[in-house]
Amino acid sequence: MARRGGRQQRLMERTSGPKEVLRPQTKRATPPVDLLSAADIDRIHDASLAILARTGVHFMGEGARNFLARHPGIQVDQMSEFVRFDETIVENALSQLPSQFTLHARNPRRSMVLGGDNITFANVVTPPFVDDRDAGVRDGSFDEMKRLLKLYQMLPALDMCLGYPVEPLDLSPETRHLDGYAAHAVLTDKPWRAYTLGDDRMFDALEIARIARGIDAKTMEREPSLLANVTTNSPLRIDEPMGEGLMTMAKRMQPVSITSFAMIGAIAPITLAGAIAQQNAEILAAIVLSQLSRPGTPLLYGSFSTNVHMKSGAIAFGNPELAQAMLISGQLARRYGMPFKAAMGTGAKVVDVQAGYESQYLLSAAVMAGGHLCAHSIGFMESALTVNREKIIADSEMVELMRGMVAKVEVSNDTLALESIHEVGPGGNFFETQHTIDRYETAFWQPRLADWENRQNWIEKGGERADERATKIWKELEASYLAPAIDAATRDELDDYVTRRKIEIDAACAA
Amino acid sequence: MARRGGRQQRLMERTSGPKEVLRPQTKRATPPVDLLSAADIDRIHDASLAILARTGVHFMGEGARNFLARHPGIQVDQMSEFVRFDETIVENALSQLPSQFTLHARNPRRSMVLGGDNITFANVVTPPFVDDRDAGVRDGSFDEMKRLLKLYQMLPALDMCLGYPVEPLDLSPETRHLDGYAAHAVLTDKPWRAYTLGDDRMFDALEIARIARGIDAKTMEREPSLLANVTTNSPLRIDEPMGEGLMTMAKRMQPVSITSFAMIGAIAPITLAGAIAQQNAEILAAIVLSQLSRPGTPLLYGSFSTNVHMKSGAIAFGNPELAQAMLISGQLARRYGMPFKAAMGTGAKVVDVQAGYESQYLLSAAVMAGGHLCAHSIGFMESALTVNREKIIADSEMVELMRGMVAKVEVSNDTLALESIHEVGPGGNFFETQHTIDRYETAFWQPRLADWENRQNWIEKGGERADERATKIWKELEASYLAPAIDAATRDELDDYVTRRKIEIDAACAA
Repeated sequence: MARRGGRQQRLMERTSGPKEVLRPQTKRATPPVDLLSAADIDRIHDASLAILARTGVHFMGEGARNFLARHPGIQVDQMSEFVRFDETIVENALSQLPSQFTLHARNPRRSMVLGGDNITFANVVTPPFVDDRDAGVRDGSFDEMKRLLKLYQMLPALDMCLGYPVEPLDLSPETRHLDGYAAHAVLTDKPWRAYTLGDDRMFDALEIARIARGIDAKTMEREPSLLANVTTNSPLRIDEPMGEGLMTMAKRMQPVSITSFAMIGAIAPITLAGAIAQQNAEILAAIVLSQLSRPGTPLLYGSFSTNVHMKSGAIAFGNPELAQAMLISGQLARRYGMPFKAAMGTGAKVVDVQAGYESQYLLSAAVMAGGHLCAHSIGFMESALTVNREKIIADSEMVELMRGMVAKVEVSNDTLALESIHEVGPGGNFFETQHTIDRYETAFWQPRLADWENRQNWIEKGGERADERATKIWKELEASYLAPAIDAATRDELDDYVTRRKIEIDAACAA
Repeated sequence: MARRGGRQQRLMERTSGPKEVLRPQTKRATPPVDLLSAADIDRIHDASLAILARTGVHFMGEGARNFLARHPGIQVDQMSEFVRFDETIVENALSQLPSQFTLHARNPRRSMVLGGDNITFANVVTPPFVDDRDAGVRDGSFDEMKRLLKLYQMLPALDMCLGYPVEPLDLSPETRHLDGYAAHAVLTDKPWRAYTLGDDRMFDALEIARIARGIDAKTMEREPSLLANVTTNSPLRIDEPMGEGLMTMAKRMQPVSITSFAMIGAIAPITLAGAIAQQNAEILAAIVLSQLSRPGTPLLYGSFSTNVHMKSGAIAFGNPELAQAMLISGQLARRYGMPFKAAMGTGAKVVDVQAGYESQYLLSAAVMAGGHLCAHSIGFMESALTVNREKIIADSEMVELMRGMVAKVEVSNDTLALESIHEVGPGGNFFETQHTIDRYETAFWQPRLADWENRQNWIEKGGERADERATKIWKELEASYLAPAIDAATRDELDDYVTRRKIEIDAACAA
C-alpha cells in the first residue's frame, strides 16, 4: 500500500484551480501509546463500576429513568432520581458495541471508517465568534457559518464537519438547527455530526441526513449517516435532552460520541485517576442506556476532561493533564473495543507561537492516544470561543504533518535501494540515480504554509509571519469553492422538509 | 513516586528571585512508539550489514584505517580507502555497548542518566547567529555565547548544554575551543558536550571537563564527564577529525553520540528505508571503530536525517520524513540496546505559529521515538542558523509540556478518590472536599508563557503575542543569573590550562 499521508495526498494537493479534492482515508502504522499498565486500566474500570453500583448517575429525564427501571440489574431511586447499575448489565452493554463502523457521507467517496487503524480529523465545534486577519473578531452568523462550510468542503485536511462551524447567532434558536443542518447537507458532501438537543431536533437532523443521502429509514439503519454527540454533565449527571438524544439515535442505529467534559478539581476529583474513574462511570452509564435501547448501536468513547487554571479560572487547553486524560481515555476505549474520540485545543487569542505549540502538542497527544476522531483539531482558538481562518490553515498543516508521521513506511528491496547505494558509493550523491529520478516528484511532503527558505529569500518575498501568509491561503481556498453535486429532487425534498418543519415549529411556539 | 514532570517541577518553578534551580531527572512512563515491525527493523539492519560488507565506508583518516586494518573481519582497501566489515565484527561491537550511562556534571545533582526511561533536553547547537526582540539578528560572539550560557544555566527545561550556544565568531578559530569550553565549565554546572575536531582539541575538551570536576584521569574513565558528537559524512564517509575524535574519546572511555545527517534524496537514497539503511551502516562503522578502540565506551545512536525541500533547496525541518526517520532510528537504537539521540528543528525565521507547530511536532516525535537526549529542542530557529531568545522561552514551555505528558500517573485508592466522589455525588462540586484542599496548590501544571485568560482580560493586560511576552521572561531569567559555585583552585587550574595551551597553539601557528 502506498503511503496514504504521503504521495497520494501530495498528488491531490498539487492540483490547482477549483476541483473536487478527494483523499483516501488516513490509516495509521503507529500503534497508540499506553500511559498506564493494563492493571491500572482495570483498576479504573473497577472504580467506575463501584461508582455506578454505589453512588449511581443522575438521569434527569423521566423517559430515560423509566426505561432503565424496567431492566434487571438497574435500580432507580425515584426520590433522588439516581440510577445505580450492577456490574453485569454494564459488561453486557460493553459486549454489544461494534468496534468500528462506517459513517456514510452523501458522497460515498467521502465516507469515513471510525475504528481500527483509521483516523479522521475535524473542526472546532460551534464557537460563538469568528476571527480572521481580514475583518477581526465578530459574532457568528449564518453567512459566516456557510462561508466556513465552504472552506471546510475545500480543505483536504478536514475529514468531517462537526456541529456548526460557528454559531449562527442571527437565526432564531427554535429553527436554527433546520437551516444549519440543511446548509451542512447541501454545501458539503463530507460526513457530519449534529447536536443532541432532545427528541424533535435530533429527529430533524436524522431526517435531513437521510434525505440528503436519498435513502430510506431501513437503509439508514444499516448505513450510519449521521453522528451525534452526547456530553455528560459532570459529576455523574445525564440531562434530559442528552438522554433523549441517546435513545433517539439508538432507535435509528445511528452513532453517538459520548463525551465527558469533566473539569478536574472542580466537577471531578483533583487527581487524574479519580477524574477519569468518574468520567468513565458517566460514559458507561450512557453506553448502557444506548445499548439497552438498541443493542449494537455504534458509539465512540469521548474525553475532553481537563483542569481549570487556578490563577485565572480559565479552562486549561494546552496542558499535560488534558494530554494524559486523552491517553488514559484512549486506553479505556481500547479495553472496551470501541472507537475513541479525542479532543484538543488552545487558549491562545492570536495565531502566535502559543497557538502553534499548544495545538500541535494536543494534536500529537490525540494521535498518540489512538484517536479515531480527532475533534476540534482545525480552527480552534481561545478555549473554543473563536474559530479563526488563519488558524484553520495552520491546523490543516499540523493535521497533514500527523498524517505523514503515522503513515506506513515500505521496507522492500525497492525502497532499501542497495544497488543504488553501491552504485553511488562513499562520497557520491543520489541526484542522478534512476532510483531518485523515478521518485523525486512525489517523494516528499510539501508544506502549504511553512516557509523553509533562508532568511534573505524570505525577506525578499515580504518577510511575513506564517499567520500573515495563511490569510492568502484561506482566501484562495474560499475562492476555489465548488458546490458538491446534489440532484434537484433531493434538494427540493430538503427544502420542503425544512419549510414544513419551520411552519410546525412556529405554530407550536405561537400556541 | 511523585509525578516528576508535575509537582516537584512546579514547586521549583514557583520559587522566585535568584536561586539555584534544580530538578530531578525526568523519567518517562510512556513507552516509545514503533513505526516499523521488528521484522522490518531486522531487514534494515541486514541491509546495513550488506552495505558494510560489500560497499564499505570510506575512513578518510589514515590513523583510523591503519587501526582498523589490524583486526580480522575488516578489509581495508588502501587504494580507495574504503573499509569493509564482516557481520561478526559488527555484532561483536554491538554486544559491548552499555545500554545506559551517567553523564557527570561538575554539580553532581545535575548529572544526567542517558538511557533507560530517562529523558534529557538540550539546546540548539552552535548556530552562527543570535536573535531576540531586543536587538534583532546579529553575529554570534563570545559575549553572546556567555550570555546564553547564563540563560541556559537558569533554564529549568534545559538539562544539558551542547556545543556552543552560539558560535563565538570574534574569537580566533585556533583557540576558540579553549575559551568556549572554559566558559561552559565555569558559567554553568550542567553536563555538556564538546565538538569533535581532531585529537588536540578533543584532548583540550577532556582536560577542561576533568579539571572542572576536580578528578583524575582514572576516575574520569569510570565517570563519563564529557559528551562529544561525531557526525558521519554521508554517504558512507567518516572524515579524519571525526575518526580521531572517536578514538580519543574511546581511549578515555568518554561517551560519544554518533549522528548521521543524511539528506534523503541528495546524499542518501530518496526512499526512507534506504536512507536509514545507509545511515545505519555509517553509524555501525563508527561503533566498530569506537568499540575496537576501547570496548564498552558509551555511545548514543543519533539521527538527524531529513530531506531537502525540492522547491527551495532548503533543508526540511518540520516534515514527516524527519519525524519518521527519528522513529525508525529510535527502534534501531533499541534493537542495539544503546541510548538514542533525537534531534529536531524548524525552518521558521520568526517566532510565529510555524515556529510553534514545527518545533512541537518534532519534539513530540523525538519523545515518541524514545529520545534519551533530545538535542536541538531549545532555541532552534531558521534551520539551526539562529538561536532566538524568545524561542528559548517558547521551547522551554514545549519541553515542560512533554515532561508532563510522559510523567507517571499514580492509580491508587488515594488518587481514585471514590469516597470523595460518593460524598460530592451527582451534580455537586469538588472545591470544598478535603481531597481537593489537600492538593490544589500543586495539583496542576502551570504555564510560564501561555496565556489562557479570556480575550477581554488578555486585551486589558496589553494583548501581547506570546513572543512578545517571552521577551520579559528571558530578561527576568537573565537578570536572575547565579554563578554556580566553583572553588578557587579549580578556577585557577582551568585558567592556567587555557593560558598554557593558548601559548602552545600560538607558538605552533607561528612556527
